[in-house]
Amino acid sequence: MPDEITVHSPATIANIVCGFDILGFALENPCDILTIRKTASRGVSILNRDDFGLPTVPENNVIGAALLALLNEVPENIGFEVESTKMIMPGSGIGSSAASAAGSVVAANHLLDLRFTKHDLARFAMVGEAVASGVQHADNIAPGIYGGITLIRSLYPLDIVPVSAPPLYVTVIHPLIEVKTSYARGILKKEIPMADAVTQWGNIAGLVVGLMRGDYDLISRSLVDVVAEPLRSKLIPGFDQLRKKSIEAGALGGGIAGSGPSVFMLSKDEATAKAVESAMSAVYLKTAIDFHTYVTTINNEGVKILNIHPEN
Amino acid sequence: MPDEITVHSPATIANIVCGFDILGFALENPCDILTIRKTASRGVSILNRDDFGLPTVPENNVIGAALLALLNEVPENIGFEVESTKMIMPGSGIGSSAASAAGSVVAANHLLDLRFTKHDLARFAMVGEAVASGVQHADNIAPGIYGGITLIRSLYPLDIVPVSAPPLYVTVIHPLIEVKTSYARGILKKEIPMADAVTQWGNIAGLVVGLMRGDYDLISRSLVDVVAEPLRSKLIPGFDQLRKKSIEAGALGGGIAGSGPSVFMLSKDEATAKAVESAMSAVYLKTAIDFHTYVTTINNEGVKILNIHPEN
Repeated sequence: MPDEITVHSPATIANIVCGFDILGFALENPCDILTIRKTASRGVSILNRDDFGLPTVPENNVIGAALLALLNEVPENIGFEVESTKMIMPGSGIGSSAASAAGSVVAANHLLDLRFTKHDLARFAMVGEAVASGVQHADNIAPGIYGGITLIRSLYPLDIVPVSAPPLYVTVIHPLIEVKTSYARGILKKEIPMADAVTQWGNIAGLVVGLMRGDYDLISRSLVDVVAEPLRSKLIPGFDQLRKKSIEAGALGGGIAGSGPSVFMLSKDEATAKAVESAMSAVYLKTAIDFHTYVTTINNEGVKILNIHPEN
Repeated sequence: MPDEITVHSPATIANIVCGFDILGFALENPCDILTIRKTASRGVSILNRDDFGLPTVPENNVIGAALLALLNEVPENIGFEVESTKMIMPGSGIGSSAASAAGSVVAANHLLDLRFTKHDLARFAMVGEAVASGVQHADNIAPGIYGGITLIRSLYPLDIVPVSAPPLYVTVIHPLIEVKTSYARGILKKEIPMADAVTQWGNIAGLVVGLMRGDYDLISRSLVDVVAEPLRSKLIPGFDQLRKKSIEAGALGGGIAGSGPSVFMLSKDEATAKAVESAMSAVYLKTAIDFHTYVTTINNEGVKILNIHPEN
């Protein structure tokens, strides 16, 4: 059995437009890098190889909490030593904490002879997510663990359903402003009009059919959110312009990544995704806000092994 | 071009459990029988060959209103003579008015060299539906016209999406009580909790994936309605028992057909669907309420031509 592994754990986007709280996907880039070593004593130690100043007490750290949840179901007297290099900026809205949670449990499972199912790993990673966000949710960790696009049909009991999709390119703009997840959640209404709910679930069903059938027009028509976006988009300067210019540049559609501040757009091909990147950049260059952009694609594998040794 | 046609127009079930207002399917049985003749003068005349006492003034009749909407887009000076034999009892909840509306426009289109698209026919049929229910809706007429399972992604603009499915058998029980559609609609809440909406659209997405992938377990897990059924099921005596006994007999799940009073259950095979019929009948034999049952399957063709002449 190997005793050291290094993985790439990808950024993920939850709340795919109409798929609020249920649909997410994994990105090829950016990725965190995690190295995990098996140790002979119970517990988890964490070394942060970046400047984000994340906690190192395991119980207060996403990686630590996830791995402790996993160790709870491991009878042997072992533990883990983790080196984490985060490339996904915390608070960007593209699943930074989920990358830590998903990456660490997938990696650890390779050091344990793959004894846990993906469903088990999602359970453990959710404990890690709860450290960062205060509530357990699975919409970012599921695509990290399963790859591709995932549906959380139900959170309790946890039911994760992979959804197939045609090639899709993703343009992300990350404005360097802070949108607290708890605030973005707080501005949502506790009740929504039935008519809006019906509109939303019509679009969700349309999006799923479009993805599974590879029908880009249907995907595009279905990328409409009448529930969260009208409220949350106000927290993101220039959101309406970002969308308008992206659609003009050929994007199929898009919206807020997670609870923001990043905004993502989907395109059929890489050239369009790059044109969308230029269009988004042009909108933000007119503001005083710094930003990053990414052009990437959907990552169908999820967490990837970079290095494992000794090899089996 | 033919000048007379006879069709079978099928019963349909809207509001497939979690798919409230968006998902419906066509049944093999029961069916209405419609004969339509082209006439040389503008207008529609209707002859009812059954005992339901439906109106014969075209503007007040589902068939008449649908055909007048169609004739509005026909420049030639022609009209239609219709004989209608309804086998689908009005008020049963399995799309009796939609069968009239869908059947008449599909039949008429064959007498017009198929000049209209299915989308056009759905528009015309919706005008007919509005005569019966007061509001335009498409969740019963769409499966009648397209066959199989259909998604109404959006009503305005009308966007109908066929959804593929594995073989499914349907058991229907029709208690001979009256549940007015307007009343069943009135008891629904105008606003619903966000948490329930998320549960509902998770199940809708799960149902669509399950249908397209032929995953019966996922279909079964997704057949949960937390929005309409908790309120509407109280209008149907013995509803909880019908479901409990049907599931025990092997049904995948089911719920209220349209706005009731019929209740339907889906099964993987015909033997199970028949066992479910016995289970449902046993529940209703203990009550004082008369009822009909049907065991049938999904009709993937929609309205069917029985006879057309002269043939092309």
